[in-house]
Amino acid sequence: MYQVFADELSGNCYKIKLLMAFLQIEHQWHHVNILAGETTKDDFKKKNTNGKIPVLQISESEYLSESNAILNFLAEGSSFLPDSGFQRAKVLQWQFFEQYSHEPYIAVARYINKYLGLPKDRLEEYHSKQQGGHKALSVMEQQLSQTPFLVGKQITIADISLYAYTQVAHEGGFDLTKYPNIQNWISGIEKLPRYVPMESENP
Amino acid sequence: MYQVFADELSGNCYKIKLLMAFLQIEHQWHHVNILAGETTKDDFKKKNTNGKIPVLQISESEYLSESNAILNFLAEGSSFLPDSGFQRAKVLQWQFFEQYSHEPYIAVARYINKYLGLPKDRLEEYHSKQQGGHKALSVMEQQLSQTPFLVGKQITIADISLYAYTQVAHEGGFDLTKYPNIQNWISGIEKLPRYVPMESENP
Repeated sequence: MYQVFADELSGNCYKIKLLMAFLQIEHQWHHVNILAGETTKDDFKKKNTNGKIPVLQISESEYLSESNAILNFLAEGSSFLPDSGFQRAKVLQWQFFEQYSHEPYIAVARYINKYLGLPKDRLEEYHSKQQGGHKALSVMEQQLSQTPFLVGKQITIADISLYAYTQVAHEGGFDLTKYPNIQNWISGIEKLPRYVPMESENP
Repeated sequence: MYQVFADELSGNCYKIKLLMAFLQIEHQWHHVNILAGETTKDDFKKKNTNGKIPVLQISESEYLSESNAILNFLAEGSSFLPDSGFQRAKVLQWQFFEQYSHEPYIAVARYINKYLGLPKDRLEEYHSKQQGGHKALSVMEQQLSQTPFLVGKQITIADISLYAYTQVAHEGGFDLTKYPNIQNWISGIEKLPRYVPMESENP
């Protein structure tokens, strides 16, 4: 059985939880306490030298890290990951966009606001994240004005990757009412069978 | 024939050039002048709403962006991209690592130093990039002490992704002599048939 090492409050970890719920993949969830420094310990570094969650354990010696790589691994052969070349590459395009042009703005602004309480010494950084975050949301809005999901008519792991932090973007100061297509897309995902919300507290 | 919209000096664009050379993929290269604002123009935004290079044009209406997504598309079916689940996902793990934990430190430090000439108002940012860059190099060094390439015995597109900016990391102030396995890996790649170096000037 798959073992997941993760934190319920992390959007990157929630991606894994949501896909596993949609695909009904059996697994055991192990809470990793980042604030207590657990990701910096040798025991964890054996799972991921880079010291980041989530990590998926596949067998005794096989560990996979990076949330979007894990999604690709788990979705193989399902409707969440197209077989064909161009559509499949488009899924990756959106996932790399997420990690480079979306998460560093929206997730970080949210972290500074929601978890750190917008302290004065991070205020400048918080404001500096707004422009990049809105740019990323505009790119998504443009695509979602043309297709119901990011890569066409069906939900894929590209949507799961971008849903994770977009749905809580307001916690980073981003007003989603400016993006009607994103709002429709969010409510569409939340109505799907087996959908599970992100937790707001760790167990 | 594939059309590539790119800049010879960008490591992200060089990844595409290098894989195309290794695989002998016929293409036409179109220089995009970022400094002249070409990526912000409507004509370019039709190719990539996010306004970034490289972009691969596959057919009249099919465009693909994000360097690592393009590599996955082009490498499909070749020895540079394993078929099997876990090895294939490991390639993606390294590519997402590259975009999140490597490029934002090493490529940005290099840009500030080499292209901007280390101006005083970017000095603090430059120094702030050093720790993250060395962390990323250590993660690579650890893997390359165990396997000749990042995902085992054969070169994959994971190596191409990470080679692009690692080989010029010294231009961002990173002393690679501390990383003997990375140095061996770099010279191994440079000895492969059909290898092409990154340009230092645009045509």
